[in-house]
Amino acid sequence: MPVSADDVRRAVAAGAGLIRETPVVSSQTLTERTGVTVALKAENLQRTGSFKLRGALAKLASLGKACEPGVVTGSAGNHALAVAFAARVRGVPCEVFMPEFAPIAKAEAAIALGAQVRLVGATVDESLTAARDRAEAGGLMFVHPFDDPEVIAGQGGLGLELLAQVPEMTRVIVPVGGGGLISGVAIAIKSQRPDVEVIGVQAEACAPFPASLAAGEPVAVQSALTIADGIAVKRPGRLTLGLIARWVDGLVLVGEDEVAEAMVFLLERAKLVVEGAGAVGVAALLAGRLPQDSSGTTVAILSGGNVDPGLLAQIARRHESQAGRRFVLLARLPDRPGSLALLLSLVGQLGANLLDVEHIREGFDLHVRETAVQLVLETRGPEHAAEVQRTVREAGYAEPRAVR
Amino acid sequence: MPVSADDVRRAVAAGAGLIRETPVVSSQTLTERTGVTVALKAENLQRTGSFKLRGALAKLASLGKACEPGVVTGSAGNHALAVAFAARVRGVPCEVFMPEFAPIAKAEAAIALGAQVRLVGATVDESLTAARDRAEAGGLMFVHPFDDPEVIAGQGGLGLELLAQVPEMTRVIVPVGGGGLISGVAIAIKSQRPDVEVIGVQAEACAPFPASLAAGEPVAVQSALTIADGIAVKRPGRLTLGLIARWVDGLVLVGEDEVAEAMVFLLERAKLVVEGAGAVGVAALLAGRLPQDSSGTTVAILSGGNVDPGLLAQIARRHESQAGRRFVLLARLPDRPGSLALLLSLVGQLGANLLDVEHIREGFDLHVRETAVQLVLETRGPEHAAEVQRTVREAGYAEPRAVR
Repeated sequence: MPVSADDVRRAVAAGAGLIRETPVVSSQTLTERTGVTVALKAENLQRTGSFKLRGALAKLASLGKACEPGVVTGSAGNHALAVAFAARVRGVPCEVFMPEFAPIAKAEAAIALGAQVRLVGATVDESLTAARDRAEAGGLMFVHPFDDPEVIAGQGGLGLELLAQVPEMTRVIVPVGGGGLISGVAIAIKSQRPDVEVIGVQAEACAPFPASLAAGEPVAVQSALTIADGIAVKRPGRLTLGLIARWVDGLVLVGEDEVAEAMVFLLERAKLVVEGAGAVGVAALLAGRLPQDSSGTTVAILSGGNVDPGLLAQIARRHESQAGRRFVLLARLPDRPGSLALLLSLVGQLGANLLDVEHIREGFDLHVRETAVQLVLETRGPEHAAEVQRTVREAGYAEPRAVR
Repeated sequence: MPVSADDVRRAVAAGAGLIRETPVVSSQTLTERTGVTVALKAENLQRTGSFKLRGALAKLASLGKACEPGVVTGSAGNHALAVAFAARVRGVPCEVFMPEFAPIAKAEAAIALGAQVRLVGATVDESLTAARDRAEAGGLMFVHPFDDPEVIAGQGGLGLELLAQVPEMTRVIVPVGGGGLISGVAIAIKSQRPDVEVIGVQAEACAPFPASLAAGEPVAVQSALTIADGIAVKRPGRLTLGLIARWVDGLVLVGEDEVAEAMVFLLERAKLVVEGAGAVGVAALLAGRLPQDSSGTTVAILSGGNVDPGLLAQIARRHESQAGRRFVLLARLPDRPGSLALLLSLVGQLGANLLDVEHIREGFDLHVRETAVQLVLETRGPEHAAEVQRTVREAGYAEPRAVR
């Protein structure tokens, strides 16, 4: 085999003292909602914010003196931070190639870890190619994000931790991008406990593994934007594809809304910041994509937590609206003093909390002596929102029609 | 003593199997920024989202059969959830009195745990009084949020955990509201390790302990709104005041902005959702309110994580603006086709990412053939934001003056 359980143990030794043993947290709410006993592996609390550090440390340790001239990689996110951190630990130079439109915060974070950042290419694939070219031209070591036996062995350390932390584990759910994490985890766990099911999760928007497994070779998919950008890998690795075919029990897909809901669930209930890619396992559980398994504990790996606070804010807002907790009400007002005050006191009596009010005068069919207002309200749920809307309409505040 | 180390051990036994041993996470960034070796006690990951469950379980266990008719408390947040959870575990009825304007989400959460919620009073103090009256009238057991020996002993369990988890601990920083947590933690730790310093943190906006300690009796302060609403207690307890005078080494205060920055730091760097009250220890460290202590590890207790996602969103946005990552630019435009496109391509060439654009036509001194636009931009930092502003101004897009 290209990667063995012994390789994983060697990789773990290489990361000793640098890798944090991340906690496992049970989730009663998730257990109640899904009928499955769930434990969450909070790998988002790993240094650099994701599991990627395990593989990067293992790879650089295996290179030894060969990485002294410097290491190069291509990534828009977690792998870049991990390689930069590992290079800093070993005191070797690090160059990271990122797509030209990578979020500014990601580039800044890599720079803060001492990496030189080069913005090249429109996609991560193009950045990776540029990184490989640069490594060849400059005599530097290229570190692939997933299709590398040492990297895979390093990620496997997470599996060994789980064996010790959750002896009652019967199933583990792993996010799948390039496939490095699930390959390593499956090898580590199945070598000792072949009875533990290992299930991968991909985002529907970018899921090349099902077709690639069927074809027996890597088949690329068209790239699509996904909130799980950390696992948006268009073409599986050759190595990881073979390992997944050999070791993994099943693959499921999740939709974008399901991932966003899982992120909010983890924020609100588990108090953990988890990026989209890290939340796909919980998304699969919440969406009922996995059979119930009452015999033991299902572990969902929260693989990373590097997410822009602005995106978190956006997801939280959308969730409040969908849950009927935020309700946007459009109302027609007679244009005379005190008419907004009357509407607002009506809304207040109904127990809805006013978050925002805005006058709207354009784009709607309004009489000369009328104006329209948009109220953003905090409500208790869909029934409450509907009650507010009905009462406001019955009191004569009709909704204006949009002018096309 | 009213509460002893033995009481704490008994309380821990009462919560066994229900209290989660919450993880301790080191923070290299915090260590680098402050010069202090810092470990974070992630008590925000406790069941019900805060340490309060420890005290509530201990109290109900000590009541035994006496709580069968039901328990009553007053709280707008964490204590309410904790008592509701503890009552559900013991199968006894629970009533929670909350202020009339408590966030809807908090009331819903208590209801979801099986509590009956009554909205009474304008402040938590008024709710507490109503709860006590209700308990007396109805023959129910009143559970005080902090000024109760059993509750304090229960919170002390967190201190025992820390002794085992962080043997190198030389200092512990504890949020102080009513004082129940710090009293219990100080008793538990100092009874075994009198050398460990115990420091409390209050929000400046609501900090009655310094004057109360000086006076030797509880002195109330005027209530003030604070982002650390979980510790906005206007008057210390008699019991906790005495315990703090006896056991605690020092108290520091933090400002509102410092708390907000600490919350964002914990979200972005530690990947943990921590409420304002839970973040005051990290705020004190980041603001340099504590002397450096190079000899050992300082533990900051993140006491809770129950925070409205809407508030998180707001804090994250504000932080991005202050860090120069979000920059709001006002510009005057000639009112002719293509003029906005020209401005936007200028801004794009400077590497600033456009988040929002809005036309503004009122409230500003504009010529008839002019309009104004407000751009919200993602920038790399203060210098970049200044560069964008300067370039836009030099290209002739002056800022309009507000009309008063």
